[in-house]
Formats: sequence, structure tokens, C-alpha cells
Amino acid sequence: MKLREILKHVDHTLLTPTAVWEDIQKVCDEAIRWGAASVCIPPSYVKAAAEYVAGGIPICTVIGFPNGYATTAVKCFEADRAAADGAEEIDMVVNLGRVRAGADDMVLEEINGVKDACGGRLLKVIVETCLLTQEEKVRMCQVVSASRAQFIKTSTGFSTGGATREDILLLKQHMKCGKKIKAAGGIRGPADAAEMLRLGADRIGTSRVIAALEQARQKGETYETISDTAY
Amino acid sequence: MKLREILKHVDHTLLTPTAVWEDIQKVCDEAIRWGAASVCIPPSYVKAAAEYVAGGIPICTVIGFPNGYATTAVKCFEADRAAADGAEEIDMVVNLGRVRAGADDMVLEEINGVKDACGGRLLKVIVETCLLTQEEKVRMCQVVSASRAQFIKTSTGFSTGGATREDILLLKQHMKCGKKIKAAGGIRGPADAAEMLRLGADRIGTSRVIAALEQARQKGETYETISDTAY
Repeated sequence: MKLREILKHVDHTLLTPTAVWEDIQKVCDEAIRWGAASVCIPPSYVKAAAEYVAGGIPICTVIGFPNGYATTAVKCFEADRAAADGAEEIDMVVNLGRVRAGADDMVLEEINGVKDACGGRLLKVIVETCLLTQEEKVRMCQVVSASRAQFIKTSTGFSTGGATREDILLLKQHMKCGKKIKAAGGIRGPADAAEMLRLGADRIGTSRVIAALEQARQKGETYETISDTAY
Repeated sequence: MKLREILKHVDHTLLTPTAVWEDIQKVCDEAIRWGAASVCIPPSYVKAAAEYVAGGIPICTVIGFPNGYATTAVKCFEADRAAADGAEEIDMVVNLGRVRAGADDMVLEEINGVKDACGGRLLKVIVETCLLTQEEKVRMCQVVSASRAQFIKTSTGFSTGGATREDILLLKQHMKCGKKIKAAGGIRGPADAAEMLRLGADRIGTSRVIAALEQARQKGETYETISDTAY
């Protein structure tokens, strides 16, 4: 898989709590430079970033993040505001207590409520696979498949683990046709990203793929000289 | 310091993302049994818990938690809803990117906005000391002192570290008279809690003080038999 293909699937991500505006500008610039799918940033920077990139790349943000236990009313308000601020993609975290309790109907209703709140925007549903049993992962595939969200996403990157090969295969097996998978957390570089895509993921949430390319750029390489590299 | 004195300062806390309703009922029961200051639980359980405890103990919850980068509008909405659901205490996280950028005016304005949104409820401002420089910690003392919030709180318990003795001394030195300090994160038991109180904290956020007492209760001890223990 050529690097330029991989990059089209990368949500270039900076969700560090202490990130300042200059850090956000940098990841926006990088995401545009390398042809990423989106740039994924904290809600409080969405409005300024949307003005800054001026349509140059979709802005993705997170809601109910990372613990998932904001109320449904708050998640809907967050999604509505993020969309109004200029986010084109919304990554929400499910209520994990409800998942554990088997309250799938409430989880489904919340996802669809957030989908209504963010309108035509792309909605990705983070299920935090590292905290779920196999049975819960399969149930979440069924819930997200039944919902109007477009994606299931493995991880926040703020819990005990990220995307694993086994989980991508499991999600691929149980998600309904037409629903997509985002692998996030622990993806170390282009080779990892390529493997996740081959296993069935459609998006990769990571900061490190483009960070590696930026290092190459410091040494004088350009998009043209390296984007044909295959993984 | 007698155990019964320590317990009056404990916010008995359960903020695990996967906690189910039975876990929340259990911490509510424990907080009442041992005479804690409050029970601190996720926003999505506040309404049910407020009905369950029926005034038996104040409900505390968290907003903008734990990363602090929800927008001000969202934090205010969260605070308003939490208060409407029955929370009497609100622990909010500051926007740490703004702290790092030196945008103290925005941090102050957000704190006061949240205070307005939650009305007469007690507001504690989490500054996540483990991510701050000494200079930033002092600046946050000044900002929280200038605000209408009642407390500064050290930590979320979801970052790289919790309350330290050094930080409590630093906050004590720099907080304006009349403002209080909550030590949270990494407090292992009654002896730790007593030390934090002696150093100047007024509240302790922890699950482990009461967890230790519950273990003693399993062995047949009661509040009466152990609450005179001194630390």
C-alpha cells in the first residue's frame, strides 16, 4: 500500500490537554501538507481551526470524551455546538456503564440523538475496546450497526489500550455492511496503519504517522519524494 | 486527627468509566454510612443518585472532565444540567491549553461563567497540578482566588499524577484567605488524608479511605468501634 493511499485514511490527531493554539495550527498545517482525511482536535479549538484551515481539510473533534459518562443531553449539546463551530466529523464516546449494564437500547438512542444533533456530519462511535469483554464488543457492533452513525471506533487513546489487530478483525466480522471502522490508539507509524487498513479499518486515528513524515521532511524529503513508498 | 473528623472532609469518589448503577448505589451507601462530605460520581448518574440518597448526602459531579478542553458554552451547559439533576457540588477542569498560553483572563471568565450556571452550588476548580509548572500553579492560585469558585482542586486522577504534599503547601501559600483546597488523586488511606488536611487541604477526593473502612466492616467492625481511631 502506497504511503499516499495510507495518508488519505489518517485522522491526524492532537488531543493533549495542554495543547496550545500554535500546536493546533501545526497539526492543521501538517494534515493539509500530507493529504490526511481530517485533523482531529479538542472542541475548544474547533472554531478557530475551522477559520484557519478555511475548508482546506475537514475538522474532526471529540465529544463525551474520553470517559463517555456525560449525560445524553450534554453530548447532544456538545455535538450541536461542535457542528456550529465548523466540525465536519464528530467522534463520540458511548456510555460505558450502560454498555456493561446491557442497556443497549439507551446506548443506541444516545447515538441517534447525537447524530440528530450534528446533522449531516460524519459520526464515529468510540466503544473503548480495551475496557470491553468480547461479548460486549460484539454487542456494540450490533448497536452501532443499527444506529445512524457511520463508523465504529476502537479507542480514545486515554484508557488502558488502543486498537489491536484482533479487535479490527472482530469488528470487521460483526459490523453491518456499509458501516466503517476507525482504528485508534497505539498506531506507531505507516506500517501499523497499513496493516490496520488491510485488516478492514477505513480510518486511522494517530499523530505518529505524520510525525514520522515530518521528521523525514526536516531532512529535506518532500511529499513527492516519499509518498510512493509502499508499506 | 480522629477518623470521624477526617471522614467529614472526604468526597467519596467513583469516576470509573465502566461503573454501573449498582456501583454508584454502593458508594452512595458507603458515603452516608461513614459520614463523608459528599459522594462524587459521573454526571450521567447524578439524577438517579439524587433521588436515591434523598438528601442523605450531597452529590458531587465533574464537568469538562478530565481533559478540560470542552468549550465554555458546553461547560456552562453541563453545570446547569448537573445542578438541575440534583448535584450540590461541581468539580470543573480548567482549559489547560489556555493556562499554558497564559490566557488567565479567559480561564477566569470561564470559571465565573460556570459559577453562574451552577448558581449557589459549591464550585471546585481542578487545575491538574501534575501538568503545570510551578509558575503556572501560582498563576492558577491567583486566578481561582480572584474567581467566585470556593475551591481549588489539585487533580482529576486521570493524568500523570495526583496531589503531592509540596503542591498542597504551595496552594496554601498562594490561595487567598477564605478559598479552600481539595487534594485528590493518589491518596491511599486515612493516614495520607490526615496529612493532607494538616498541610492545609479542606477536602480529600478519594475512594480508598472508605474502601479501607469497608474492609474493616467486613471483619465485624462498626463506625462506632473505629471512628475514634486517630491518624
